[in-house]
Amino acid sequence: MKTIKAATYPIHFNEEAYTNLSKLIDDNKYSTLFILVDENTFEHCYPKFISNLSTTKRIEVIEISSGEIHKNLETCMGVWNAITELGGDRKSLLITLGGGVITDLGGFVASCFKRGIDFVNIPTTLLSMVDASVGGKTGVDLGVLKNQIGLFANPEMVLVDTNYLATVTQREINSGTAEIIKYGITYDTNLFNQIKKDKGLGITDLIYRSIEIKNEVVLQDPKEQNLRKILNFGHTLGHAIESFYLESNDKENLTHGEAIAIGMVCESYISSKLLGFNMLNVNEIKEVILSIYDKTRLLKEDFSDIIELLKHDKKNINGQVNFVLLEAFEKCKLDCKVTEELLIESMDFYNA
Amino acid sequence: MKTIKAATYPIHFNEEAYTNLSKLIDDNKYSTLFILVDENTFEHCYPKFISNLSTTKRIEVIEISSGEIHKNLETCMGVWNAITELGGDRKSLLITLGGGVITDLGGFVASCFKRGIDFVNIPTTLLSMVDASVGGKTGVDLGVLKNQIGLFANPEMVLVDTNYLATVTQREINSGTAEIIKYGITYDTNLFNQIKKDKGLGITDLIYRSIEIKNEVVLQDPKEQNLRKILNFGHTLGHAIESFYLESNDKENLTHGEAIAIGMVCESYISSKLLGFNMLNVNEIKEVILSIYDKTRLLKEDFSDIIELLKHDKKNINGQVNFVLLEAFEKCKLDCKVTEELLIESMDFYNA
Repeated sequence: MKTIKAATYPIHFNEEAYTNLSKLIDDNKYSTLFILVDENTFEHCYPKFISNLSTTKRIEVIEISSGEIHKNLETCMGVWNAITELGGDRKSLLITLGGGVITDLGGFVASCFKRGIDFVNIPTTLLSMVDASVGGKTGVDLGVLKNQIGLFANPEMVLVDTNYLATVTQREINSGTAEIIKYGITYDTNLFNQIKKDKGLGITDLIYRSIEIKNEVVLQDPKEQNLRKILNFGHTLGHAIESFYLESNDKENLTHGEAIAIGMVCESYISSKLLGFNMLNVNEIKEVILSIYDKTRLLKEDFSDIIELLKHDKKNINGQVNFVLLEAFEKCKLDCKVTEELLIESMDFYNA
Repeated sequence: MKTIKAATYPIHFNEEAYTNLSKLIDDNKYSTLFILVDENTFEHCYPKFISNLSTTKRIEVIEISSGEIHKNLETCMGVWNAITELGGDRKSLLITLGGGVITDLGGFVASCFKRGIDFVNIPTTLLSMVDASVGGKTGVDLGVLKNQIGLFANPEMVLVDTNYLATVTQREINSGTAEIIKYGITYDTNLFNQIKKDKGLGITDLIYRSIEIKNEVVLQDPKEQNLRKILNFGHTLGHAIESFYLESNDKENLTHGEAIAIGMVCESYISSKLLGFNMLNVNEIKEVILSIYDKTRLLKEDFSDIIELLKHDKKNINGQVNFVLLEAFEKCKLDCKVTEELLIESMDFYNA
């Protein structure tokens, strides 16, 4: 598949990507390759990765525990200490092999080690392929607040090998599908219809189109001043819901996609009330989402806690929560304010 | 005094600097001002600062404990949590008011909070005025390894008010003087002679000239690929000595300047052996330094621990320690290798 050119780096696909990676490593005369994995990607992805890589460099594997709950500064310190003890220097290369936790955290670790070493991202989940592979967002959570600490930093290369998807669960595939639905709703109705009607477009094509879309958006607005905010559709309420379940001791966590899917239903409903977004489209979105995700029952008594978490959203200025809403498919309005009543009403709509 | 233009920001001096800062705050419509201080600068510098600032913005003071030992990620987490709890958003401004620990750590905290908020540095010690005010280096220590975690990030403005020097001890003044001596040796013999012969140039002039020099160097080589490495003269061995005293439980810590002063004597001696740097100059440098700093007795039995710490120097590639040495005053040679025997000999020379 054709390489996609992101801002400062290429995104290579499938088998030929490994040739490009091997060449990058040779050309840059790296001193050591550090491969960041979790216990799952070390077992299921690393063997394939290493058998495809052609290099004589020293390779050191650093393993962290899987899961969003480990996407924090303590884990970063562990990795920084490991790199230090293994003799990492400014000419080291960090290769991340995993889902969004690994690629986001790894990019942050690399960008801050001795004021920045090179890194390459190899997303192995659908979510990280379609979301984390473009845009330069790196970071970790602070407590339950998602991606509160981080920075913009681009990798030297992204390698997307869809064969890694064979190693993940259906629930993880669904988690990534939420982002593809988002690209469809906000940017490309054809893509939305593909998923809605399951027209049989292969997963690789869906991934490729999603990365193309995200890349087009990010190239126009790398630092999220304007256009890029459309990628937050569903994420404002979605992140708050995700954080709420993450900090609840008695509730099972939601995947990122499950939370964002709920967020998209609610924010579509809010759009219909504030911007006249067609209610037929709202129901269409809800229907597609409920065909993929089990319904989560949001408890009335939890609404205020969820709304409280909204105030930490990174888009907020002066305590004002800013939503991205829809006037129509492919037509977003940025920086919308929403009353607490309407937020509650939208969660009721999701529950109904 | 005339404003110095650094890469992307101005460095303003003394009284008129506050007018510029007040204007910056107005122009950028910041939501909240967070002032980062330690217990000393809160007591001795904050009252002057706040009486000079003209703004109606909400101001929140965040205090951390003073000292290099607190320049770490735990302190960063405390500050990030404080900013979060106080409702910091992307339009918040962080103003650092303190020495190098505050300005380096504060710049790092700001650059990573929600992927980066603006910050302004107000150095209050001689060292931070002549060193941390230019160059965009931010960061914290990892264990005893200095500035291991950090990144390049520029403030919106630097405000140098030499009146703050009235609040610091002579030992702290001496710590900063080591950097001025370094600028003299590596870049401007006139400046070195000023200090050597105490020609009575005022401290403000010494600071101004030092900042000019550092700015000239950094503008030519912002990311320390080549020329900027000259600013590491004395720092390779100096940092290792500083780290060694920091991690020793039974030895009093050295200030940064005290350690770097020893480093400069040793590296001057090494320069004479490897590059024919005139031994008369070596002795001249040693004499000036011993006229300012009490002699530290480096114990023979500690040499190997100090040399071991060298391997974590950020300039190292492939385990090779890279020194900046002198062919003459104002003439440095980069990336020099030094044998362990010569390192030992140089410390013996310092002790002699």
